[in-house]
Amino acid sequence: MLPFAADPAARLTAFGEEGLLTAIRRWLGPVAPASPFGMGDDTAVLRPAERNLFTSDSLVYGRHFDATLAPEAAGAKLLKRNLSDLAAMGGLAREAVLAAFLPPQTSVVWLERFTRGLAACADAWDVTIVGGDLTQTDDFLGFNLSLLGHCEGRPLLRHGARPSDRLWVTGSLGGSLLGKHHQFLPRLSEGAWLGRQGPSIIRALIDVTDGLAKDLPTLLPPGSAILLDPSKLPHSEACRRTAEVSGRPPTFHTLNDGEDYELLFATAAEVAPEKFAQSWREAFATPLTLLGPIIAAPHPSLDRRLLDLRTGQSFPGTQGYEHFGKT
Amino acid sequence: MLPFAADPAARLTAFGEEGLLTAIRRWLGPVAPASPFGMGDDTAVLRPAERNLFTSDSLVYGRHFDATLAPEAAGAKLLKRNLSDLAAMGGLAREAVLAAFLPPQTSVVWLERFTRGLAACADAWDVTIVGGDLTQTDDFLGFNLSLLGHCEGRPLLRHGARPSDRLWVTGSLGGSLLGKHHQFLPRLSEGAWLGRQGPSIIRALIDVTDGLAKDLPTLLPPGSAILLDPSKLPHSEACRRTAEVSGRPPTFHTLNDGEDYELLFATAAEVAPEKFAQSWREAFATPLTLLGPIIAAPHPSLDRRLLDLRTGQSFPGTQGYEHFGKT
Repeated sequence: MLPFAADPAARLTAFGEEGLLTAIRRWLGPVAPASPFGMGDDTAVLRPAERNLFTSDSLVYGRHFDATLAPEAAGAKLLKRNLSDLAAMGGLAREAVLAAFLPPQTSVVWLERFTRGLAACADAWDVTIVGGDLTQTDDFLGFNLSLLGHCEGRPLLRHGARPSDRLWVTGSLGGSLLGKHHQFLPRLSEGAWLGRQGPSIIRALIDVTDGLAKDLPTLLPPGSAILLDPSKLPHSEACRRTAEVSGRPPTFHTLNDGEDYELLFATAAEVAPEKFAQSWREAFATPLTLLGPIIAAPHPSLDRRLLDLRTGQSFPGTQGYEHFGKT
Repeated sequence: MLPFAADPAARLTAFGEEGLLTAIRRWLGPVAPASPFGMGDDTAVLRPAERNLFTSDSLVYGRHFDATLAPEAAGAKLLKRNLSDLAAMGGLAREAVLAAFLPPQTSVVWLERFTRGLAACADAWDVTIVGGDLTQTDDFLGFNLSLLGHCEGRPLLRHGARPSDRLWVTGSLGGSLLGKHHQFLPRLSEGAWLGRQGPSIIRALIDVTDGLAKDLPTLLPPGSAILLDPSKLPHSEACRRTAEVSGRPPTFHTLNDGEDYELLFATAAEVAPEKFAQSWREAFATPLTLLGPIIAAPHPSLDRRLLDLRTGQSFPGTQGYEHFGKT
């Protein structure tokens, strides 16, 4: 659905600011509590509690979604991108503030559906929308959501893996543009479970958003690399369909497509992989794939690279999704 | 300074994403701590403490600043807008996340100066920048900052004033476009002092950002109004200069210009105004003006309006700055 309206009566400028704020709070419904614990004052007042995670992510028309996506799905995607970041620390979500950048031609119906989609997602994941900001633009349509969360125990950081530790990835990868880029379920339960295992079991954790090729090296300590068996990578069905159209191997898409929103983590070398996989299966239906152990980099030029088990060389092709690419 | 560069080598696309992130963290300097207590992981980990205020504000090129403003001042303004919201709760600042929407032609020098201006302001007000998000746009340049804060005691809300309570405003008003819209100092010390007075002294508090005409009514309980003596309004020097150019009376600009970032609050009817003003002067050099007592609205059509003491009628003209104005 196009987020812009030709008919002036269907545009948000038909509201005025107060009307727009009132409508947004109505559309958000119970996930947006009243002041002082929500919108309506200069800032929101949070209920006393230890809040120890803080993250922020944006969603821009023409970049993260377009008119082919249902507005509800775009609203949910804005929150789920942030939830995936909390999952990648082993955390759970609490309060959020929403900033909207809206051109005057924004369709009120589109905005209502976007907001209701965000609210339904917030309700499903126990998020409270406690405030935000509305800014009029000339023609830019975008959103930012900043989210507070908390951990039961210690948060799982990205640095901590050592040589001989094993890397694992949840779900399947590649081809996200066919739908997963917005249909994904943030792996919050899985992340919190990993956090409860303790640091002697789980060494490091991130989410895969820019593709394994770009994200996996952030888990590798200097002087190390990982050997991947392409025949054992968890290609998604969408990855295979994308590969049929692109003519590239599925491995290329699994390593580079991005927007997988899966968890990538390291278990300590001492953890028996079969036993760990068994514990996982008892807790979750979510697939889990052992990518392999971290090895010493066989050559300085291969430091922190993904190596093809068959050749010992780095995989050809790009290295994940590059934002702000060189022109 | 124009935030865009004609020379491709001077644009941020010459960096790539990793280079840009590294540069921004260098420009932020000590106000951006290392992971896990700052940027560099999926989310920031906050030091344990009770954080009970949460707010968000945006800054857009062509709307809140333009090429005539020094980049450092634009960066500081983004943070100070949020700080003013915390001041308006009687709070002080803690951690922030920064979201940037940047077109490829953004000048690196401009962005460095913007970021260093933000960092200097954060350092001055004890704010830590713990994370954020970078998004490439086609041609939109804007920022959002979400800020956590805390109160020593109970936060001061906007609802709580009663008839016979007195309204006060700090500083002087009007003509902010001549410089105050970015040169203002957030009234954090004053707000925290008001918070310490307790609810039997201070009933309600907000900051004036859209003009007294629009912001003052939010403090008025239903069925009430306020009588203003135009000769006693705290017109700024810039207000008088603006009035000379516009041909309108200074009162018009003091009521409607907006971006004053002053505090507006209600003292309880029982509080002697002379004694309160004396306590204020012992604590602050910041001017303080007694606007007058809240009265019963003399007519339903004058409910929650600003009334001219000379006529008993509502002031003519617009009612403050209207965002998302009707077209």
